[in-house]
Amino acid sequence: MSSSDIFIGEIIGTAVLILLGGGVVAAVVLKRSKAQNAGWLAITFGWGFAVLTAVYMTGSLSGAHLNPAVTVGIAIKDGDWKNVPVYFAGQLLGAMIGAALVWIAYYGQFHAHLTDREIVGDPADKAIEGPHNESAGSAGPVLGVFSTGPEIRNVWQNLATEILGTVVLVLAVLTQGLNDSGKGLGVLGGLMVAFVVVSIGLSLGGPTGYAINPARDLGPRIVHALLPLPNKGGSDWGYAWIPVVGPLIGGALAAGIYNIAFA
Amino acid sequence: MSSSDIFIGEIIGTAVLILLGGGVVAAVVLKRSKAQNAGWLAITFGWGFAVLTAVYMTGSLSGAHLNPAVTVGIAIKDGDWKNVPVYFAGQLLGAMIGAALVWIAYYGQFHAHLTDREIVGDPADKAIEGPHNESAGSAGPVLGVFSTGPEIRNVWQNLATEILGTVVLVLAVLTQGLNDSGKGLGVLGGLMVAFVVVSIGLSLGGPTGYAINPARDLGPRIVHALLPLPNKGGSDWGYAWIPVVGPLIGGALAAGIYNIAFA
Amino acid sequence: MSSSDIFIGEIIGTAVLILLGGGVVAAVVLKRSKAQNAGWLAITFGWGFAVLTAVYMTGSLSGAHLNPAVTVGIAIKDGDWKNVPVYFAGQLLGAMIGAALVWIAYYGQFHAHLTDREIVGDPADKAIEGPHNESAGSAGPVLGVFSTGPEIRNVWQNLATEILGTVVLVLAVLTQGLNDSGKGLGVLGGLMVAFVVVSIGLSLGGPTGYAINPARDLGPRIVHALLPLPNKGGSDWGYAWIPVVGPLIGGALAAGIYNIAFA
Amino acid sequence: MSSSDIFIGEIIGTAVLILLGGGVVAAVVLKRSKAQNAGWLAITFGWGFAVLTAVYMTGSLSGAHLNPAVTVGIAIKDGDWKNVPVYFAGQLLGAMIGAALVWIAYYGQFHAHLTDREIVGDPADKAIEGPHNESAGSAGPVLGVFSTGPEIRNVWQNLATEILGTVVLVLAVLTQGLNDSGKGLGVLGGLMVAFVVVSIGLSLGGPTGYAINPARDLGPRIVHALLPLPNKGGSDWGYAWIPVVGPLIGGALAAGIYNIAFA
Repeated sequence: MSSSDIFIGEIIGTAVLILLGGGVVAAVVLKRSKAQNAGWLAITFGWGFAVLTAVYMTGSLSGAHLNPAVTVGIAIKDGDWKNVPVYFAGQLLGAMIGAALVWIAYYGQFHAHLTDREIVGDPADKAIEGPHNESAGSAGPVLGVFSTGPEIRNVWQNLATEILGTVVLVLAVLTQGLNDSGKGLGVLGGLMVAFVVVSIGLSLGGPTGYAINPARDLGPRIVHALLPLPNKGGSDWGYAWIPVVGPLIGGALAAGIYNIAFA
Repeated sequence: MSSSDIFIGEIIGTAVLILLGGGVVAAVVLKRSKAQNAGWLAITFGWGFAVLTAVYMTGSLSGAHLNPAVTVGIAIKDGDWKNVPVYFAGQLLGAMIGAALVWIAYYGQFHAHLTDREIVGDPADKAIEGPHNESAGSAGPVLGVFSTGPEIRNVWQNLATEILGTVVLVLAVLTQGLNDSGKGLGVLGGLMVAFVVVSIGLSLGGPTGYAINPARDLGPRIVHALLPLPNKGGSDWGYAWIPVVGPLIGGALAAGIYNIAFA
Repeated sequence: MSSSDIFIGEIIGTAVLILLGGGVVAAVVLKRSKAQNAGWLAITFGWGFAVLTAVYMTGSLSGAHLNPAVTVGIAIKDGDWKNVPVYFAGQLLGAMIGAALVWIAYYGQFHAHLTDREIVGDPADKAIEGPHNESAGSAGPVLGVFSTGPEIRNVWQNLATEILGTVVLVLAVLTQGLNDSGKGLGVLGGLMVAFVVVSIGLSLGGPTGYAINPARDLGPRIVHALLPLPNKGGSDWGYAWIPVVGPLIGGALAAGIYNIAFA
Repeated sequence: MSSSDIFIGEIIGTAVLILLGGGVVAAVVLKRSKAQNAGWLAITFGWGFAVLTAVYMTGSLSGAHLNPAVTVGIAIKDGDWKNVPVYFAGQLLGAMIGAALVWIAYYGQFHAHLTDREIVGDPADKAIEGPHNESAGSAGPVLGVFSTGPEIRNVWQNLATEILGTVVLVLAVLTQGLNDSGKGLGVLGGLMVAFVVVSIGLSLGGPTGYAINPARDLGPRIVHALLPLPNKGGSDWGYAWIPVVGPLIGGALAAGIYNIAFA
């Protein structure tokens, strides 16, 4: 794979991943969405199928890492760090683009949610513009569309949960080559990783919201800080290092387990 | 593929798609259905598996486009517009047939929902025929069985959301050939596209109900206008151009992205 | 395939189908089940995966028809009725065995539901044996574990809905050979048919509960009539012909469509 | 496969199985989890995809039995008991490790649930340490994260339900080799078994919570007894033999059915 294919593939793939992954959170938590309150199962399948879609599209271009933790795990396993910076750059840029696209797709919903009024096209709606709702209750879910946050703020547990989730993800990615004697899994590989991501979401997502991917969390958090959303509240930068450092440790740990037990 | 195979395949496939896709909306929103209030997850999986079933049946006959936006995307990618009118005609006709079949399958439920009384076969039920319920609240869900409508009516956002959803769908269809070095995905291709459609529904369906297919929206809307449903209300023709134009732009855009980044 | 393999395969496969399919209804509707009120999505996926499990097990033995409507459709398509009686006998017998196994698996739940007391092993529970609950409200869900019934009792609509659902099912079964140029779908075929069954449940199950299989409905209805369940109410024999005749018409119709459009 | 590969594969696989399987129960039942009340469908898909992930990872190492009932069924079918003790040891040890990892991943949630206060890192939260909640109501769900328990305590029904569920599981595992003429199912085998496990959960999980695996129940029960959880209540050792003996009988029965009907 050429550097430019990797760069373009990771940008497109991570943008699609975050458009669909951030999109399902927006769909479930924002007001005036048909999917409001569709629940945790919708969110976990939404993220899993976001992975499926993005991997399916860009697997032939860049190998579809779409996640710095996966890139680190593969680099350690293969002992080859040459393309790592290109992967990282594409992933972060793609994640930022994806987060901006979620904002476009749910433009009216973000405003309805944050201001209790709608940004609408027809004059009849203009009449219902009331005073802005400044309550803190609406800003939390909006940050949640972009980035993860813990239910209970405890550095060690939060780190541990992110590490455990990422070990499962990266170990599944690293071992998938073992399942078909080198013939290439093709489409099935993406399907299986998608279900593994649903599994991690259902089983290990409860405490921190399962970032398990530094680009998935950091890129959209930067976009949240930059976007002109009214009453959006802070971007919780105090927590931001955990979903970056935890998954990187998890990816490295998975490669270590792979090299000891499977290689 | 011969023109007649394409025409028949698209009619059967799009009819099955709309029978099952419109059917799941009827099942979830209409009164006196066992699935009433089964929720958004039921609707999105219902539409996804409708795609799976229709593609699975008719893939060998017409290639199972079942969507003018897919036909446009493939025509641009291949530079071949010869069969486009046949595809379009089959898709629109099939969608109309499918919508009429939904009406047959849920005949009593439509009437129960729109009139608060039942059309029933046994005489005992005749006694409970009360005055018709003319409230506007029941007509909205009935149009929703046939066609999409936005939660917040904003031309630019509604168009943008439909374009984004269709770009994801058509790019997934166009890139699927890249995943298996020309061997043909067969059944797996339909499965993957089905999950992509579930993904788009979960993640980008919140604002407009994800038409992402001009035939899926226009055909049933025509049937809604023609059917003798009591108290059915209007067919919202003011919105009707958006789920036609948006997906066509999205299909063309996906082909452009494919030709630049993947070809 | 030998007649005895067909007979044994259909018995085991249909028994597993009904054990799992009737089981999920018992799990969702009966009192004192961990899955009570798990909803329509649970029921439709439960039936779909019941098909998957049964087909997966017995495909190599009998071809896993497990449904007289499928047997009729294949017989018409192939013009070969020789093994049809063996298939029918195995399917009906298997369905009856499966329904009896559901009764064993949910023994205490059936009694708790029908009597408001528990049949339990330890003496402490004997003390709470109160008067039997004779209210009609509990018997309906219990018959629903065994057989289907309509939400709105209308012979023509009920027949039409069963026919439509079965056409989709049998057409999917008949066309699946077209998808892989004779190599045999193996495991994937069962997976796809399972998702088609989920699709029919989600989209066409609302009015009648989608029997789409004469053996699935008639066998368990006979067992319901025979079992010593307290306060069980009637077996609704007046409706029993519809889920037998409707699916048989649907299977024949699907074979007709296949022979005209696909052969 | 070497004994050490089997031992390591079963430890890793069963640990992942229990981390994800116990994890989804923790996610759904414990306080302060984002997935609280996500419902039975989340639990059954969570366990199914836990099987998928664990089988996918370790299939090449140990064959991924991950369940003494599967090991017994295969041993009877093949008439080869040589590696059975190594499988059993790896499975029990892996299940205990997995249960301990669930405790780490949900550390704060366990404490919040059992004490009505949080174990948190920042001083502000220390202030809300109230008196411990000694009510019995919270301890039940916590044991449910580790081990199964019946809704209605009836030895014969509970045994029968566990036997039936395990017969379905092990028969599906034993027959899967018949589906592809010896080519090896690879990834698809794990996917199908995962859906079979979802099926058993949906359809036969209502009465006892479907252990269908002695290691899955006994290993975590031991860990529950050992862990320093406050107010944790008893480990229900009186029931502990049923989810061990029932599945072993079911595995043997499935092998018997296989040898008679399929071999």
